[in-house]
Amino acid sequence: MKSNIGVVGLGVMGKSLVLNMLNNDISVSGYNRSIKAIDELKAKNYAHFQGYTDLKDFINSLSKPRIVLLMVPSGEAVDEMITQILPLLDQNDIIMDGGNSFFKDSERRSVALKEVGINFYAVGVSGGEKGALLGPSIMPSGDKEVYQIIEPILTKIAAKKNNEPCCRYLGRLGAGHYVKMVHNGIEYADMQLIAETILIMKRAGYDNEFIANTLEKWNQGSIQSYLLEITSKIMREKEKDQYLVDLIEDISNHKGTGKWTAQQALEQDVNVSLISAAFMARLMSGVTTMRDAFQNKTKPKIDIDIDVLKKAYSLGKITAYAQGFALYQDASTRFDYQLDLEAIATIFRAGCIIQSELLEELRVIFKEQPKIENILLADRFRTWFDNDIDALRQISALATLNALPTPLYQAAATYLNQLYADHLGANIIQAQRDFFGAHTFKRIDKEGIFHHEWE
Amino acid sequence: MKSNIGVVGLGVMGKSLVLNMLNNDISVSGYNRSIKAIDELKAKNYAHFQGYTDLKDFINSLSKPRIVLLMVPSGEAVDEMITQILPLLDQNDIIMDGGNSFFKDSERRSVALKEVGINFYAVGVSGGEKGALLGPSIMPSGDKEVYQIIEPILTKIAAKKNNEPCCRYLGRLGAGHYVKMVHNGIEYADMQLIAETILIMKRAGYDNEFIANTLEKWNQGSIQSYLLEITSKIMREKEKDQYLVDLIEDISNHKGTGKWTAQQALEQDVNVSLISAAFMARLMSGVTTMRDAFQNKTKPKIDIDIDVLKKAYSLGKITAYAQGFALYQDASTRFDYQLDLEAIATIFRAGCIIQSELLEELRVIFKEQPKIENILLADRFRTWFDNDIDALRQISALATLNALPTPLYQAAATYLNQLYADHLGANIIQAQRDFFGAHTFKRIDKEGIFHHEWE
Repeated sequence: MKSNIGVVGLGVMGKSLVLNMLNNDISVSGYNRSIKAIDELKAKNYAHFQGYTDLKDFINSLSKPRIVLLMVPSGEAVDEMITQILPLLDQNDIIMDGGNSFFKDSERRSVALKEVGINFYAVGVSGGEKGALLGPSIMPSGDKEVYQIIEPILTKIAAKKNNEPCCRYLGRLGAGHYVKMVHNGIEYADMQLIAETILIMKRAGYDNEFIANTLEKWNQGSIQSYLLEITSKIMREKEKDQYLVDLIEDISNHKGTGKWTAQQALEQDVNVSLISAAFMARLMSGVTTMRDAFQNKTKPKIDIDIDVLKKAYSLGKITAYAQGFALYQDASTRFDYQLDLEAIATIFRAGCIIQSELLEELRVIFKEQPKIENILLADRFRTWFDNDIDALRQISALATLNALPTPLYQAAATYLNQLYADHLGANIIQAQRDFFGAHTFKRIDKEGIFHHEWE
Repeated sequence: MKSNIGVVGLGVMGKSLVLNMLNNDISVSGYNRSIKAIDELKAKNYAHFQGYTDLKDFINSLSKPRIVLLMVPSGEAVDEMITQILPLLDQNDIIMDGGNSFFKDSERRSVALKEVGINFYAVGVSGGEKGALLGPSIMPSGDKEVYQIIEPILTKIAAKKNNEPCCRYLGRLGAGHYVKMVHNGIEYADMQLIAETILIMKRAGYDNEFIANTLEKWNQGSIQSYLLEITSKIMREKEKDQYLVDLIEDISNHKGTGKWTAQQALEQDVNVSLISAAFMARLMSGVTTMRDAFQNKTKPKIDIDIDVLKKAYSLGKITAYAQGFALYQDASTRFDYQLDLEAIATIFRAGCIIQSELLEELRVIFKEQPKIENILLADRFRTWFDNDIDALRQISALATLNALPTPLYQAAATYLNQLYADHLGANIIQAQRDFFGAHTFKRIDKEGIFHHEWE
């Protein structure tokens, strides 16, 4: 019996996806360099699983056209694996990359493989271990005519929301990995925003139990999200009589996708200040020499209104999504990905790390206004923001004044203050540039390009 | 008579540098595609100037080894000009690029030209038109043994501070353009910080005359700078009975160096949040659809204490320099540039756009502590910051609360709040990452790497 699909790399994500497939009656061959992961899967006694440590046997165990899903670390490992597999494949076989590859690498691989008759698919997968096992959000891109071959497998294993699979064809070349990259950028932002929200509540004297309850309550309404849900559980988790989260080192790591999003936004001239600030916050946590030198225990207690905090958090969160989706808008034309934003909102509604009620609202907005330049221009959000912007300003100001490090609240308030402002002072910048560099300026009282002799 | 040096491109900067050289008794040949710029220079009747529109005649007019200074727009124009000149040169001739080229391009050109026996020098030049004419700050990099050939010319035309030329050998390959790039990043930050300072004063009801006087006063003391000087002049400049600056469009442009600095900082994992925010502020001024939709005329009047504002501005400015110099520190080892930070502070003291009293202080710090990890760790600044940090927090909070768009004040306060904080909430990020992705964490109570089953 030939398998429907082969999975290369049986780490946390690879193994979970294999089990997901097996549970959906998809026959799977697994390849791994070491036998241990294969034995673990075999021990589960699925009749439709085959495990291999020999690549040739693995490839030969697949039905044609062969579908090979790579679940190896992004970077060189992907190229190396492709090089090894390529001689064993036949024309029109399909290689899917389910890792967090950089979208430009996927574009390069897609073009190179097409030249030798192999179909490449960039497949963004979000949901972590649990999502991979029970149903992730899946973001595939490649040649559209190939999609029908892989669609049955991908939609079967994808998360379902109201019986709709969280998997839609997204575009050509590396679009799927682009969408996944920005998804992770939004994820960085929301995670940091929640962490800051907790810092603020702690400074106001609230304990972990109260904070967990608050996040749980918030998770019932219009700002429901997977991240709020797990963070409320995190705040409650105890080891003996101590809260585990409070025993974790105050230094955060990253694996690159948030940084890529920030870099890519600069390249595209799109402001994703919340995502950048979230990445920078992780960097700052690791600047230990500086932190040790400056650390100052002065901590004035603050008073906060939890409802005001909730309003501020909500606006910050929506702003992070708005910046991420603005990047999609730009990439859609810039790279000719023609991204379907409604499809993206749809597949983010379940399975992925940023799943939240908000996505259902975004879906409706993109359905009604597919060409909307920015989600903040939608009536629904405009009203929300007009009503609650002062809450965000208050929380941001309070935190800054009281030495609380809240880069995301600052970034959100700043971004919105820039949008709401009647004047940004950019005229002063233009005057300075003209003064020292004769860079010229435009005027509000007449047409044309002007230079002034300032001295 | 053969000329000491040839200058290619007689635009604003090229022409000014030629005149600077001529005034310093350096004989110069100028090349320009159109005759107009040459005629303008010839009309000044310098006996030691020769002008050419023919490249071969131009090259033949130079003494050997030939020194050719390119003053053409950065990018393809530099490569094209090198391609045209190369066949006309002899071994050991020198091509200097005095434009704002990206340092990696300079590195590439340096390596390629060395292979064909031509010496390449990346020469950062700052000071705008006036600096180029009267003495710019000059940042040269390339093979050290070649420096003695060009040093007499460069030091003659450079700005002088206490009789020392603002030109020092900086390192190998593209180091000079790297230093210039980050110089411009710092420049973006200080310009934006001054613009925001003016926005704040305006909202407090002060008029242009008062603002000009205030900046002029600030310019007398320890935060003296060229940018404060020119901005006070800008605020005072009238056209008929109207202030010219108020007639300039509220949209700012850029030529790339601030963006490169932000991108490069991300690549190097160094936080230059003030420089990034300054670049983003320019982008935001151009997001006109969004600005038009959101613009809101509500402008509560605010009360400010000018002394507090001055303290806040000072800390913001120093923080921008600290971030820029942290980038130099990192590049120094990362690219093996072995940058001499004292030399950089020294040559920035006059001639360039960011010239300021602060550089004299930095020079002393780097002389006494050449290996200091960050200038904010110097006693001088630590005391200053400990004393005045609350002023920065107050101004930032006041601006945010009152809907004033002050991204640089927010970025500075945030960065310092991150350094001063006893806790950043990074433990929460690590717990979230471990929850959904099994990314593991470290603990404060025991050694090792841990994963927890959170559910």
